[in-house]
Formats: sequence, structure tokens, C-alpha cells
Amino acid sequence: MTSIIAETATTPTPGPARALVCRGCGAEYPLAAQHACYACFGPLEVAYDQAALARVTRADIEAGPNNMWRYAALLPAGQDPATRVTLDPGMTPLVAAPGLAAELGISAPLWVKDDSGNPTHSFKDRVVSVALTAARDLGFTRFACASTGNLANSVAAHAARAGVPSVVFIPGDLEPGKIITTAVYGGDLVAIDGSYDDVNRLCGELVETDEFEDTAFVNVNVRPYYAEGSKTLGYEVAEQLGWRIPAQVVIPMASGELLTKVDKAFSELVEIGLVEAPAGGWRVFGAQSTGCNPIATALHADTDTITPVKPTGIAKSLNIGDPAAGAYAIEAVRRTGGWMDHADDDEIRAGIRLLARTTGVFAETAGGTTVAVLKKLVDSGRLDPTAETVVYNTGEGLKTLDAIAGLVGPTHRVKPSLRAAREAGLLG
Amino acid sequence: MTSIIAETATTPTPGPARALVCRGCGAEYPLAAQHACYACFGPLEVAYDQAALARVTRADIEAGPNNMWRYAALLPAGQDPATRVTLDPGMTPLVAAPGLAAELGISAPLWVKDDSGNPTHSFKDRVVSVALTAARDLGFTRFACASTGNLANSVAAHAARAGVPSVVFIPGDLEPGKIITTAVYGGDLVAIDGSYDDVNRLCGELVETDEFEDTAFVNVNVRPYYAEGSKTLGYEVAEQLGWRIPAQVVIPMASGELLTKVDKAFSELVEIGLVEAPAGGWRVFGAQSTGCNPIATALHADTDTITPVKPTGIAKSLNIGDPAAGAYAIEAVRRTGGWMDHADDDEIRAGIRLLARTTGVFAETAGGTTVAVLKKLVDSGRLDPTAETVVYNTGEGLKTLDAIAGLVGPTHRVKPSLRAAREAGLLG
Repeated sequence: MTSIIAETATTPTPGPARALVCRGCGAEYPLAAQHACYACFGPLEVAYDQAALARVTRADIEAGPNNMWRYAALLPAGQDPATRVTLDPGMTPLVAAPGLAAELGISAPLWVKDDSGNPTHSFKDRVVSVALTAARDLGFTRFACASTGNLANSVAAHAARAGVPSVVFIPGDLEPGKIITTAVYGGDLVAIDGSYDDVNRLCGELVETDEFEDTAFVNVNVRPYYAEGSKTLGYEVAEQLGWRIPAQVVIPMASGELLTKVDKAFSELVEIGLVEAPAGGWRVFGAQSTGCNPIATALHADTDTITPVKPTGIAKSLNIGDPAAGAYAIEAVRRTGGWMDHADDDEIRAGIRLLARTTGVFAETAGGTTVAVLKKLVDSGRLDPTAETVVYNTGEGLKTLDAIAGLVGPTHRVKPSLRAAREAGLLG
Repeated sequence: MTSIIAETATTPTPGPARALVCRGCGAEYPLAAQHACYACFGPLEVAYDQAALARVTRADIEAGPNNMWRYAALLPAGQDPATRVTLDPGMTPLVAAPGLAAELGISAPLWVKDDSGNPTHSFKDRVVSVALTAARDLGFTRFACASTGNLANSVAAHAARAGVPSVVFIPGDLEPGKIITTAVYGGDLVAIDGSYDDVNRLCGELVETDEFEDTAFVNVNVRPYYAEGSKTLGYEVAEQLGWRIPAQVVIPMASGELLTKVDKAFSELVEIGLVEAPAGGWRVFGAQSTGCNPIATALHADTDTITPVKPTGIAKSLNIGDPAAGAYAIEAVRRTGGWMDHADDDEIRAGIRLLARTTGVFAETAGGTTVAVLKKLVDSGRLDPTAETVVYNTGEGLKTLDAIAGLVGPTHRVKPSLRAAREAGLLG
């Protein structure tokens, strides 16, 4: 595919994207289906025409639809609504969390950006919408991914909505619940006898075959577009706060890309004049699980070199042992004066329960991780409890019920009579 | 509670609600915590000051928040945002469904109103928000319900967000998954050794005790307010269609109340001049499961008398064997020229899969029921395939995974190598 499309196609809809630029050496490439630099093999990122971005006004955005496409003029695809491959995710709730703040000893406003409200209930709908819209613009006619959960759900659902064939690759030992939530959409679902790493490796080989020339693997050959979708989680928070960037954000890390893109979104908003930088800047904090903490470990060891790990632990949606954007996440955290930490499985479970009990938001393990790390950051003095903070929940508790099964249950068991209710203490 | 509050309290915030009126004999009562007529024991419904409703403009609504509270001026509670007990549900997607229409032989626009997008992923967030907001206005300091699933989730989450104690009553043999999704919010959760009917009966006794004088049971003592929340599912569809009422709507029925309230919402919009009635009026269709079909059975037998049934079948959120609003649902269907039908468990499962495959919307069994009935209505000629139709999905597939477990799964199983992929037919 690369050989055909990389040389000929450019994004057919007029948008602000200008080129793909290597994050390593700065080499530039046309807007095509390419994700690595031919010169240094570094990852590619979308670069924009700054003048085009600078023409965007708050009023333009506010007049847009109540979903992430209100920011289309800041994205690499989807300017023409008719070309979108999308479930219309975004504009998920920003929930005030005074009860959580009180329990953690935070005196400033605390908010939860609850992205479980997306159509397939994770932030992946954002990145998939941008990736597949770009993919269709680029001429791809089948959509694919390797995934163990949220991404699989999102790609299969997007393909079903668009009426486009899909093929999703999963490890063969995935829990039945996670298989159902992808299989129900009716696309091809390939169970690979192997680990997630094996699945990924196979997809990396398949994408080079003639038979998959027509296929966009959302997190492989159209990855630069995919990653840009995460910027909307930065834009939205700023707009929902009344066009203000919060002093502190706490973000879960798998590849580390989400953290870098929220930071990039804030920088863009300031650069193009939509938002004023907060007086002391903003500080970006990253959350990992102890079972998969290569990025936090590198930061704590004061190095840029990520040592891959074999992931363990219940926060499976964060379990990327060799995180592609880890070094960039460390850069963003260092530059902004933030920090990273990690939470073990018990702390993650407690984080899920604490968030639910104080806000009514039921998060998957990734959200529990982020809340648990928020608590650690306050306790260790790394996070300023007197500064406004936004904590990101990226997924839905219904998808990881097993994590807290056995921990929560009925508080009373009673026979169906008033006398039994009285004996159980329900009646004074 | 009734004895104290019914005689003294009225809604403290200025709203359009005027009184509670008996649906049976028309007797009027003040806006209090009362749900049955003292004269004839009929159910009470909120009545409005029509002049107040008529002052509401489209512009007022469009300037409101992007959730159901944009219709606060048409609701019995929540006019003052500061008084709301809410997760801010509503303004869920209205999804165009051309693929589903094509499969069913519908030539006119077909839409899915997908209420799984609410915070706890069912339409119950709407009714609970109105009920608990009214309840707090009325002086209640604890929130309760009897439920087997969606309602329990919603009440517990609302109470957690508001920082108000809650007590949720469930049958003791409920599936662990449904217990977790309520217990995680940390309120009291009382498992009753008995059926849902036993749970309901006990709640009816508890509500009369001194110890529960401070407690609002959302679907008992504040039921008239609760029921009004469903109107927003009518308002939203009309607004999302560009202030137009669709020719046909297909709505799942448990108590039958949702159907009557969507119809009431359409009537109100026409009466107060916000929308023109469609040329041929609108037709309301009701969907039940074959395992619990007392309303459809009565309609088919051309009677108003609902014969209660003992519910069976997988559409548990629709399993109300003695539906309180069944006769009113029949009245609405007859008056508008609609119809009712029911679908068995296999048809419900097929409905879930059909909807997911053609729209990317993954519905719980109630949504599968509605889609299956939509298909029957087309096949039987009861529903006009050349007229615009909206079908309501009221809940989330993640909550009823068991319904389709074993039916959907991987389409291929492959070892992690290109050779294996080729042998499996993935490479031509």
C-alpha cells in the first residue's frame, strides 16, 4: 500500500495538515499512509499550516456539532462532514468532583474528564474516527487493528456504521466478554494463538502484503492520523472550562501518546490565540500501573531510555510493555514540571471505588489507575493541591467488572418482610 | 412521609407544573410526594400550567445545556440548576440507520435514538434525574428504589454524585455483574431473599414506615415526577430532527410508561406551538418480549384489561408482569393508529446483532426487542416502510452480554505466522 499511495495521494479535503514530520530527525513527507521515517526510522507526526490553524476562532468551534468534529479545523481529516467515518464521539462530560477533592485534600477545583461517555465507551473512538476518516480519504477500503479490547470494539463499530469491511486481530486467550463486544458488530475477528505482541508482529507483516494493500491498520499504517485524535481531549477540557487551560492534568499512559497529545493540544490553543497560557503554565502528570510502568520507571531513574517490560496486572488497557511515545511523554512531563507515578492492582481497585463513590463515575481499570496515581501525587507533594486539576478517565467500568468482583456487594441480606428488615437494622 | 409532606410542601422552585392529577377520575392534588388518588386509587400524573409551557421558545431550548435540562421549562423539577440531583443525561445520539432500513425494506429515513449514551447507559438516568431533583425539593434526604438493573445503577450513581445516602433493593439472586454495577457507588445495597415482586412489595411497606419517612423511592412515592423524565426522549427526537415529529416511533414497553410519555411529549410540542403536527399525525408502536407481553396481548385481544403474567425470557429490563401504564399505552397506540408486537428470545438476540452490524450500536436486550419488533411490524404491514421512523434503544449491550454469549465469536483462529494466515484464507 505504501508504495502506491505514499507517492500519489494527499488528503483530498482541504484541511490544515501540511505534512508528516519525523519526530526524530525532522524529515518531512507528504500526507500519506506512512508512519516511520525513511531516513531514521523515527515515528512520524502530522504537521500543520500554522496560518490555517490561526484562522480558527472560538466562535467557529462553538458553532460546530456537539462532538469532537467541532475541532475539525484543527485535525488532519474530517473537514467535510460527508467524508467522516465516525460514531461522532467527543464532548464527553467534564464532571466537577468536590467530594473526591475533599477526600484527597485538594482545595482547588478538581474535575474528571469522563471519556467513558463515548459511543463505544472509551477514548479510542476519538483516535479511530480520525484514523479511519483519513484512511478512507487515502483510498483504503478495509479497516483493521490489533487490540485486546477498547480499540477492537471501536474499530469494529466504526466499520459497521460506515458499512466498510473490518478485520480485527486479537490474542486467542482474550476473555469471552471482550470477544463478544467486538464480534457483535459482524466484521472479521481473527483470534491469534499467541500474545498481544505476537498479534502486533503479525499485523506488522500483514500490512506489507498484497492482500492487505487495501487495508488501513489504524495504529500501524495510518498511525500519525490516529494519534492526532487524542488532541481533542485537550481542546475539550479547555473549552469546557470556559477557554482556560487547567494548571494540572493527570493522564493515564499506555504508549504515552495520549499524554503528549493533550499537551500538544494545549500548546496549539495558546499558539493560535484561542486560549491564554495560565500564569504558571500547565503541568502534565502521567499515570501507569505498577505491572507495566516502563515510562514512570525511566523518569524516576532520570533517563530518557525506556526499558521494555513484560506487562502484568489488571489495567490491561494500559499494558504496553514497549511504549512507542514513552520518551516524548517524559519530555512533556519534564518540560512542564509535572511528574509520573504508578499504582498497583489493589490501589487501582481502590481508585475505581473511590471515584465511583465520590462522583458517580464508574471507570475501567485505567481510570482507577489514574485516580490512584492522583492520590499518590497529592500525598507525595508532587501535585499542588491548591491548583486546579483535571484527571482523565478514558474508559468504562462495565468493561472491567472482574477487577472489582468480590470486593463490592450487598451491604445487607434480608428476607422479604418488615420484621426481617427491622432485624437487619434497616428500621432503626 | 405522605402524611407530613403531602399536606404541606409544594415545589419550591418556580416551574410550569401546576398539580398532580388523577389519570382515572381527574381529581387534583398539590405537587407533593403522592402517587395514587385518594378518591379512586388511580395513578397520578403531573399537570402543567399551559400558559407557562406556551411561553417556551425553540431559542430558549437551543440556548440551554447540551443535556435533558435544556427542557427544564417543560419539566416538573430542576428549573434552578443549583437544585438538580443529576448526572446530566440526555441529548444522546439520533443515529441515521440506512443500512438497517435497507435490510428491513424501509425506504424512508430510519433513525435509532440511542439512549445507551447516558451516564449509566440507560434511559433511566432521565427519570431518576427528575425524580431525585423533585425529591430533594420536597425535603427527602435519602434516595431509594427497587430494581433488577438499570434503575439500581442510576439511583446509586446519582446519589454518589450528589453526596446523598442511598438504599437500593434488589432480588437476592441477581447476577453478580448487576450487583457490582450498583455496589461500586458505595450506597446501601439490600439483597432480598425473594423475587422482584417480593422486593417491590417490601418497598411498598417500607415507604410507609417512620424510618423511611426521609426516603424517596423513585418509582413509588415520587413516581409522578419520575415518569415525566421520559418526556425528554420525545422532545429530543423532535429537536434533533430539526423540530419535526417523525411519522412513526417504535418504543420498548415494560410498564408502558415510556411510550405514553413520548406520545405526551409530541402532543405538548404541538399544543404549545414548538412543532407542527405531521400531516398524517404520528403513529406510536410498542415492543414487548414474548416472555412478558401482557400489553401487546391485550391490544391483540382488543381489550383494555391487562392480564398480569409471570415474566420469563432474556429481556429482563422489560420484565414487568403487571404493567402500571399498560392501559394508557394501549390508548396511545389506538389513538395514533399504531400497533404493538412482541419478539421471542431468539428474535431478540437476532435484533441485537442486526442493529450492531448495520449501525454500530450495541444494544441491551430491550433494544434487541425493539429492533426485532420493528422488523415484525414491517413484515406484517403494520408499519409503513415509506414513512420516517424512529426506533428507541434504551440501554447498553455491555449490560446484557450473556444474551449473545456463544452466538458471536472469532471468525478465524490462526497461529501467529503469515503461513498460517495464508492457510486460514486471510491472504487470498
